[in-house]
Amino acid sequence: MAKERPAGRGFFITFEGGDGAGKTTQIKLLSEYFRSAGQTAIVTREPGGTPVGESIRALLLDPSSAMLPRTEALLYLAARAEHVERVIKPALAVGSHVLCDRFSDSTHVYQGIARGLDAGALLRLDAWAADGLTPDITFLLDAPPECLSGRRRKRGGPDRMEEEGLTFQRAVRAGFLSLAAQNTNRILVIDARQSIDKIQTAVRFHIKDKFPESK
Amino acid sequence: MAKERPAGRGFFITFEGGDGAGKTTQIKLLSEYFRSAGQTAIVTREPGGTPVGESIRALLLDPSSAMLPRTEALLYLAARAEHVERVIKPALAVGSHVLCDRFSDSTHVYQGIARGLDAGALLRLDAWAADGLTPDITFLLDAPPECLSGRRRKRGGPDRMEEEGLTFQRAVRAGFLSLAAQNTNRILVIDARQSIDKIQTAVRFHIKDKFPESK
Repeated sequence: MAKERPAGRGFFITFEGGDGAGKTTQIKLLSEYFRSAGQTAIVTREPGGTPVGESIRALLLDPSSAMLPRTEALLYLAARAEHVERVIKPALAVGSHVLCDRFSDSTHVYQGIARGLDAGALLRLDAWAADGLTPDITFLLDAPPECLSGRRRKRGGPDRMEEEGLTFQRAVRAGFLSLAAQNTNRILVIDARQSIDKIQTAVRFHIKDKFPESK
Repeated sequence: MAKERPAGRGFFITFEGGDGAGKTTQIKLLSEYFRSAGQTAIVTREPGGTPVGESIRALLLDPSSAMLPRTEALLYLAARAEHVERVIKPALAVGSHVLCDRFSDSTHVYQGIARGLDAGALLRLDAWAADGLTPDITFLLDAPPECLSGRRRKRGGPDRMEEEGLTFQRAVRAGFLSLAAQNTNRILVIDARQSIDKIQTAVRFHIKDKFPESK
C-alpha cells in the first residue's frame, strides 16, 4: 500500500498493462480532466522521461540488442532512478500530478515473472533505484493478449518486447493480475476491452474516490 | 578473498587505478606473456566488452550526459551483468585467462566513495549484477593524481569522469588504497610511477606467486 501523501503534494498515478491496452489514450484524457479542473498534471513514461532515460529506452527497445534479463532489469532501473529524482519527485513536490505510463509494476512483471528473475532481489533493487517512491494509485488496463495484438499492429513494426509472442504476453497478463491481487489498495483493474469513454469514466471515478480533495 | 578456483579454469585478473596509470599497457604486456607461454588470454574492459556494454559505455562517458550517481551506478552494473555472463564466465570456463581493465572495485570506489552512494547497497547490487563473480587477483596501479594528469592530457580531451578534477581524483586514489587494505589477499598495490618494465616484472612475479601452476 502507498504511504501517506503529504498535504499539497500532487498525486502519483501510474498506468500498467500490455502494449496496446490504451494507456496513452487514457493518460491523455486524464491529464485533460485535471487541467480542466485547474490542476497541473504532467505526462511521462518509462523507460524514458529524461534525456538519459530516452537514450536507455532506445537501447532497451532496439530489436537488435539481444541482452540478458539481468542487464535489461538494470537498464530499466537506471532510467527509473533518473526519472524519479529529476522529474517525478520535483513535480509532486510543487503540487503537480504525475501521470506515468509504466513504473515499478512493469519491472516486476516483465523482468520478474516473465523473465524469471528473483522477485525479492528485484523488489530491493527497485526500491533502491526509485528511492522508495511508490505510486499513490495504479490503473491496470487488462485484456486478453489476443484482443490487443490488432491495436499493436496498426502502429507499425513490433519492438523487441512485443516480438516475444503470445505465450509471453499471457505470462505478462497473469503477472499483472497477480500483482493487482496482492496490492488491492493501490492497483485497480479495468477491463481494457471497454470503450475509451467507459474506461476514462472508471478512471475518474476511482481518482475522486481515492482523493476526495480532487473533486 | 576470492573463492577457490576450479581446476582447469582460467585466471580472472583485473587492473584498477586512476586514468593514465598505465593499465592498458600492462594488460597488453601480460597478455603477450601468457600467449608466449602457450596459454590463452583475452583482454577486455569495463564499462564495455560487449555490444550492449559499449553502447552503455558511450552513454556513461559522454560529457553531455549529466546523470545522478544512482543512475550511473546502475548503468555500470548493467554493462557488467552482460560482460560477466557473455564474455568473462565463458572464457574462464574453457581455460582462457581474462585480463580486465576495471571491474567491481571501480564501482565501489567511483560510485561509493567518490559519489557518496551507500557501500553496503552497492556491494549487494554488484554481487547481483556480477552473479557473484570476483577476480582471482587485482593489480592496483597507484600513483598521486598529479603524476597521472600529464599522461591523460596526451590522449586528447578529458571524458566526463576525468573532468572531475584533482580533489575527486584524490578521493578516488584514497578509496582504492582503502579497498586494497581491506582485501590484501586479492589486491596488490604497485607503484605506477615506476617504468613500464618494472611494473610488468612485478605483475608477472605476483601471477607466478599466486598461481604456481602458471609457471
